[in-house]
Amino acid sequence: MAGLVPAIHVFLLLCYGLSKSWMPGTRPGMTWIVCAMADAEPKLANGAGRIVFQTDPARYRHWKLAVDGDVATLTLDVDEKGGLFEGYELKLNSYDLGVDIELADALQRLRFEHPAVRVIVLRSGKPRVFCAGANIRMLAGASHAHKVNFCKFTNETRNAIEDASEFSGLRTLCVINGTAAGGGYELALAADRIILADDGSSTVSLPELPLLAVLPGTGGLTRVTDKRKVRRDHADAFCTTEEGIKGKRAVDWRLVDDAVPNSKLDAVVGERLRELAERSDRPRDVKGIALKPLDRQVAPTGIDYWLVSVELAEAQRLATIMLRGPEAPPPASIETMIEEGSDFWPLRLARELDDAILDLRFNALDTAVIVFKSIGDAEAALAYDAFLDAHADHWLAREIRLLWKRVLKRIDLTSRTLVTLVEPGSCFAGTLAELVFAADRAYMLIGEGDDRDNRPAAALALGAANFGRYPMVNGITRLQSRFLGDPEALIAARERIGEMFGAEDAEAAGLVTFALDDIDWDEIRVFLEERASFSPDALTGMEANLRFGGPETMESKIFARLSAWQNWIFQRPNAVGADGALRRYGTGQKPVFDTKRV
Amino acid sequence: MAGLVPAIHVFLLLCYGLSKSWMPGTRPGMTWIVCAMADAEPKLANGAGRIVFQTDPARYRHWKLAVDGDVATLTLDVDEKGGLFEGYELKLNSYDLGVDIELADALQRLRFEHPAVRVIVLRSGKPRVFCAGANIRMLAGASHAHKVNFCKFTNETRNAIEDASEFSGLRTLCVINGTAAGGGYELALAADRIILADDGSSTVSLPELPLLAVLPGTGGLTRVTDKRKVRRDHADAFCTTEEGIKGKRAVDWRLVDDAVPNSKLDAVVGERLRELAERSDRPRDVKGIALKPLDRQVAPTGIDYWLVSVELAEAQRLATIMLRGPEAPPPASIETMIEEGSDFWPLRLARELDDAILDLRFNALDTAVIVFKSIGDAEAALAYDAFLDAHADHWLAREIRLLWKRVLKRIDLTSRTLVTLVEPGSCFAGTLAELVFAADRAYMLIGEGDDRDNRPAAALALGAANFGRYPMVNGITRLQSRFLGDPEALIAARERIGEMFGAEDAEAAGLVTFALDDIDWDEIRVFLEERASFSPDALTGMEANLRFGGPETMESKIFARLSAWQNWIFQRPNAVGADGALRRYGTGQKPVFDTKRV
Repeated sequence: MAGLVPAIHVFLLLCYGLSKSWMPGTRPGMTWIVCAMADAEPKLANGAGRIVFQTDPARYRHWKLAVDGDVATLTLDVDEKGGLFEGYELKLNSYDLGVDIELADALQRLRFEHPAVRVIVLRSGKPRVFCAGANIRMLAGASHAHKVNFCKFTNETRNAIEDASEFSGLRTLCVINGTAAGGGYELALAADRIILADDGSSTVSLPELPLLAVLPGTGGLTRVTDKRKVRRDHADAFCTTEEGIKGKRAVDWRLVDDAVPNSKLDAVVGERLRELAERSDRPRDVKGIALKPLDRQVAPTGIDYWLVSVELAEAQRLATIMLRGPEAPPPASIETMIEEGSDFWPLRLARELDDAILDLRFNALDTAVIVFKSIGDAEAALAYDAFLDAHADHWLAREIRLLWKRVLKRIDLTSRTLVTLVEPGSCFAGTLAELVFAADRAYMLIGEGDDRDNRPAAALALGAANFGRYPMVNGITRLQSRFLGDPEALIAARERIGEMFGAEDAEAAGLVTFALDDIDWDEIRVFLEERASFSPDALTGMEANLRFGGPETMESKIFARLSAWQNWIFQRPNAVGADGALRRYGTGQKPVFDTKRV
Repeated sequence: MAGLVPAIHVFLLLCYGLSKSWMPGTRPGMTWIVCAMADAEPKLANGAGRIVFQTDPARYRHWKLAVDGDVATLTLDVDEKGGLFEGYELKLNSYDLGVDIELADALQRLRFEHPAVRVIVLRSGKPRVFCAGANIRMLAGASHAHKVNFCKFTNETRNAIEDASEFSGLRTLCVINGTAAGGGYELALAADRIILADDGSSTVSLPELPLLAVLPGTGGLTRVTDKRKVRRDHADAFCTTEEGIKGKRAVDWRLVDDAVPNSKLDAVVGERLRELAERSDRPRDVKGIALKPLDRQVAPTGIDYWLVSVELAEAQRLATIMLRGPEAPPPASIETMIEEGSDFWPLRLARELDDAILDLRFNALDTAVIVFKSIGDAEAALAYDAFLDAHADHWLAREIRLLWKRVLKRIDLTSRTLVTLVEPGSCFAGTLAELVFAADRAYMLIGEGDDRDNRPAAALALGAANFGRYPMVNGITRLQSRFLGDPEALIAARERIGEMFGAEDAEAAGLVTFALDDIDWDEIRVFLEERASFSPDALTGMEANLRFGGPETMESKIFARLSAWQNWIFQRPNAVGADGALRRYGTGQKPVFDTKRV
């Protein structure tokens, strides 16, 4: 009996971790033997050591991007053999994170490299199928953490499609000629308009519940009720109908905008494209700037970019992100900004920061806390904000602002404790001060400290950027959120734009959590150690609540209501257990459910 | 090896179910041996067969209710030996569901039996402790389903405290003299005003995260940010500080309204009571009505009340709730209504329906679907609505309406598929028609059917009650929610108040999902079978999303954002695993965490 204990411990690990590497065993009672891995991530394909988010159209394997005048066509034609991880094929235009990384890249390039594009057409490059959604084998094999991270990233990408339409004049038309199932239909839902071929076989569906016992996890349920405003009983019928809905009923139920016979499809698509393009305020006949690859040096102890460096302290489960302020004043003219292109300080910093955050999310799962620091001239940082403000109507200035908005939202939604340290020599001013307000806690050093080399005392400065440019997913700014209980403090803060706040002053104005002198600065180390000792899950849940006080929007509902329920379901044996629907899918065996309604 | 398989299957079950009956084993490697139960519910105390929600002050074991003029004092003095389940003692004024059932009953009685009470004082009957929150041993021993159901009920009770203040003029003042930890502070948060003794030792705290690796699950995080509007970084510090906050800092951080030295406590409490009472619009010098015990006959196949009967079809996992319409026209005068007291039809029906829903939630976990049916005279049901409308300013009419609002909200939040069948002889009109709109799907029979005994064809009628009396937790009515995408249909519906809709007419007006003739009526059986075949968890998640399209409120955020995250955490090994914090609490061993941030 004693010899058994270790074996059973493996199972204990397995079951807690809800392992995914299940393969059908030969005897029913023995299937457990082959599901012996804990919640380990499957191997990345081609021996890759980490998930990389940088790509460019020349390297796409799954999407084709073609630009013709003010119309860009994004064609999904997934390479079955191009999965990010080993162990599955991306059949039927199904996707994994790798496919979505290319989509996110294409959308980013359309914003910056193709400012004259006014409409994107999303369509399939395969016959009879638009997109089968997230690959089921990938999901069944993924760790819980990867499933959650994957859904978050795909959600951010779909939100970015809607953001481009609402704020950048870049509309999206989705043409479904074939089946759009699950994540395939959810991708369509992000578009401004959906045209479905009325050919007797093209359908839209959200078959996740009947087929896989999970939710449509990429905004589907929320967009069906809150964007498409499908009646809730129709939505119920739709989401439980595996085979989907086609033709006139899909229009009647508001699931698509048009159902068009193939003979008229091109004409209607053309007409809708014109309508959408006309409503765009993007500039005509301008050239974009090239988004150059980000230089980065990856080491076990961190990553170095030009303006951002990430330092990993594994033992402390700590990542420190240092942001560098501008080295020169902003350019004298908009033309110089365009010449600088993706090296323009605010743009380069935003791109590097975004990449660093994504890298930490996916490749440094054990990190408990991200500490933000900065170094540079606060006045110079404010001057860049002023430059962008002065040219707010210019397409590139607008795109840079919108990119910062998205990067800051991504930070808010990152499941790591966020701490900002305002130290001597830092430049948390204007846009960069958003990192102070995004943090779960911000500490500021009083005075110059005793062991520092003539750097000026820590200063914090507000800019106009802090009062409306960067709403969070719930529609209010970080300062509005901070001062929900003290609206007068918000008004007072606005009157002090441009002023350099010392630590005690910043604390009194409610801008930082604690102002500490050099002697007490060590409290932060104690705090960071304590934070790393808490349950990672409970911290994620707590932060997801405390960060988003006040109103909710469709976007915030997707990350709160929908994703939180989906994460719960992603832990439930009915979905991910050995006899659950995700594992049993495609085996010919029906899943076995615990019938208790919880 | 073959002989091992069954044993390992026990563990598989156990681990999936995340068993709670862990006791420290003698050898570390063997601790698994004693955690051999699946996710079974612990035994109810005293051999009880089911959880019962009916009680009255004479039977309270944990609360004392005293009424003096317009002030009621609710004193929490928990009987340690009075736990609802076996296996734990309710030390330090900690609570379980049984304690909360008494609180809910007391609040209900204050509304109906004591209409002249204007303020409730919540306080502790024990020295040095206000309330230690939900009992940890109870939580550690409870099934996942019970934890979720327990939190939902306690949330509903706290929401009812706030509803009483906002809509019924019944304010609550909480006096904390001692420690208010976790659920203890969350109870205080439901009050209009919190007074903390400033004695150097009285504290408020939410120690769930540092101590137990779970969230404050009874609205705490949401009320801290959205009701008390505590600054989010202060909230972060507060929720991770096990020992809590006291005195001036508790006031500065908005956690309490007053911190008062013991010498002045009585005076300040008296003053605040007067202030709160003055702002109340409750009547003076009126007598209440007695809430008589509900007669009910419980059988294995269901429960019979006077006006409600519940029929359980276990094999089909189906509960059918039949509601009986009024047998007589409404009384001629308000005096007669008062004489009828708790037998007055709308009041009796609401109380019975509420009890039936709670019974199904807690005692019939395997039920997949609740089917609502009704029998009676639709015109008579509308006449009762009209009677309540005509006397809308009378305290009792108001309380009956508010009770219906709460019961309907409870139904919306019930994790069972809700189906309403509108059949010949039914009386879904006005208030009762809300059950058609609360349903995930509603089916209506065309014509009289062929095997029915001269009952009139199915009719559905709208009343003024459907247009504002009964908002859901998200602040909009069920019809507003239904017609989010078609506001004109809402206007059109309002113009047809009082009209009897036939089935096809009701379908065309968007009031029911499907109108079916007698031949197709059997489709419903197929639908119900299919529904019972789906994953119960996925259905719960889907319905929690589709039922609440549109806006969110603090109340809906509690059930969506907060509860959904908490449910996820309640499934995570870091909280509920053998080495998790809930199990390890009080053993002297630190919990072992999977350090991945998800």
